[in-house]
Amino acid sequence: MSAFQTLAWGDQALVLLDQTRLPGETVYLECREVEEVARAIEELVVRGAPAIGVAAAYGVVLGALEALDWEPAPFRRHLQEARARLARTRPTAVNLFWALARMEEVIAAGAGLDNRQLCDRLLARAQALRAEDEAVCRRLGQQGAALLRDGFKVLTHCNAGGLATAGYGTALGVIYAAQEEGKRLRVFADETRPLLQGSRLTAWELRQRGVEVTVICDNMAGAVMRQAPIDCVIVGADRIAANGDVANKIGTYGVAVLARAHQIPFYVAAPVSTLDLSLASGAEIPIEERRPEEVSRGFGRATAPEGVGIYNPAFDVTPAELVTAIISEKGLARPPFAAALRGWGEGHRPG
Amino acid sequence: MSAFQTLAWGDQALVLLDQTRLPGETVYLECREVEEVARAIEELVVRGAPAIGVAAAYGVVLGALEALDWEPAPFRRHLQEARARLARTRPTAVNLFWALARMEEVIAAGAGLDNRQLCDRLLARAQALRAEDEAVCRRLGQQGAALLRDGFKVLTHCNAGGLATAGYGTALGVIYAAQEEGKRLRVFADETRPLLQGSRLTAWELRQRGVEVTVICDNMAGAVMRQAPIDCVIVGADRIAANGDVANKIGTYGVAVLARAHQIPFYVAAPVSTLDLSLASGAEIPIEERRPEEVSRGFGRATAPEGVGIYNPAFDVTPAELVTAIISEKGLARPPFAAALRGWGEGHRPG
Repeated sequence: MSAFQTLAWGDQALVLLDQTRLPGETVYLECREVEEVARAIEELVVRGAPAIGVAAAYGVVLGALEALDWEPAPFRRHLQEARARLARTRPTAVNLFWALARMEEVIAAGAGLDNRQLCDRLLARAQALRAEDEAVCRRLGQQGAALLRDGFKVLTHCNAGGLATAGYGTALGVIYAAQEEGKRLRVFADETRPLLQGSRLTAWELRQRGVEVTVICDNMAGAVMRQAPIDCVIVGADRIAANGDVANKIGTYGVAVLARAHQIPFYVAAPVSTLDLSLASGAEIPIEERRPEEVSRGFGRATAPEGVGIYNPAFDVTPAELVTAIISEKGLARPPFAAALRGWGEGHRPG
Repeated sequence: MSAFQTLAWGDQALVLLDQTRLPGETVYLECREVEEVARAIEELVVRGAPAIGVAAAYGVVLGALEALDWEPAPFRRHLQEARARLARTRPTAVNLFWALARMEEVIAAGAGLDNRQLCDRLLARAQALRAEDEAVCRRLGQQGAALLRDGFKVLTHCNAGGLATAGYGTALGVIYAAQEEGKRLRVFADETRPLLQGSRLTAWELRQRGVEVTVICDNMAGAVMRQAPIDCVIVGADRIAANGDVANKIGTYGVAVLARAHQIPFYVAAPVSTLDLSLASGAEIPIEERRPEEVSRGFGRATAPEGVGIYNPAFDVTPAELVTAIISEKGLARPPFAAALRGWGEGHRPG
């Protein structure tokens, strides 16, 4: 169905589509060590909350393979170190910690197993997480597709597509599902500075799937909303607090404010694994700040003078009051979100 | 005072600081022909509404020099062709047409002059426009400086500084004037995609003048307004309609919506020559659309896949109701703007 695979398990290796080289080159990177997976996550070879969760799960499997011949105690210590290393890669997307917690359950439940048996179970769990992610995205897409009508113009920010998940996508999954129902859509993709996931990734995968797409600079979203007009905004999420506040790629908040000013519905599409019900509000969500060079040298040459200050938060928080609905594999939640999200969380079973 | 000169008249040539090569290189370009000036304006070697007006005025002088030895009738025809060529360069900034009209007045008043005499008068007018632009910016800066208090955090978009004028600047002129009064300010500069006038130019000139500056991507303005907090926004303008609607660099409208959502004052700083009282509202302002490659290949390599749609408007219109005040050399106008702007326009005399 897709002409690409975001991530796959190969011959004792995690194979990642190197997203830093899209759209120019389609290159796959084989990771055979925990450290390689951790760096691939840090350097955004693989990115997108669901995808980094699944990648980290496979990272734990590689940790087991690295230490397969060791004595049981150091083997298990190594697994904990692998988990800790992977957990340190990126702070905002909760799916990473959720997936690592699913792997920890396997380790805890396998106290009596030998190294090989535990390794096999870890691989089985990672494979299940991967398959579940794709299935969840498809259900999520179907839930959301009902919101879209034939001919809709949809604006999206960053990439919440097949490239951000094990396959299919969240925000873009809604668009793909609507397309499969025969609806023709036109997507406006914010390019999403500093790393241009919108123009490099979203435009690339939409085009691969035959969805009409127009790339705009982030600062054009307001003008497009006034002129086009836009029928709805759909974005993904990296973490959703108990009250419905949404952490997502930097700039999402600004798009939400603009959508509200233009009375355009603003939808967030995310699997239940993106919920963090332990946080009362978005103010508690840790926001990753990345290297200033992503802004000042993002295109291979200096675009800001030496020595000026640069602020480069990778995410922002959109308050729940700007969100029209949250779309998950369980259905749609509308404000106030707390009860619906609690219901989804309670019913949620580990992958 | 400044370590750079945006534009200057040299030995029968208009000397332009090549802004496409900042901040990496400080290179000056000598234009000796009308066509060179026209291309310099089209290619943004010189940009910013007041600066392109003054550059176009010098362009007319070069037109006169080109044809100095011709018979009077073809000489004057050539001057009209020069004006027409310069008027075709960029459609949105009204200062361009305003400056060309000032030059036309000299031509019309000089019906009995010989070529050399007329050429001298055109040069004198262009020099006067240049001197007036700097004086106007300084008065404008002083008018606006009263709005800023010591310690203010100011957000700006694009470049409305010394580089956008014959000197000193409009939005940044307000900041410089406040600084000269001893106020310490901190400026957040939107990088301003696609051509990064904020990070390349605004950050560069603020740093040259010792103003603390932090560059952010355009999509971070909302997060900064929520966190910093920002005390006010100041931007320039390319054309202001009779009702106070403001055309300015693409993205200005989004910043204005965000400022309103955060109850942050949104100021527009522009000389009276930016007014176009012939237009009832901003809906009538022609908006330049530029090449898609500015978005998709802005930094020398492809950042969007081949064949996707790209929308690249260079300006947007901010409705008057989002503008807290317009600052000109005549003072401050507050909503409703119509009467105040009409007063400024009536009192306005050609440079």
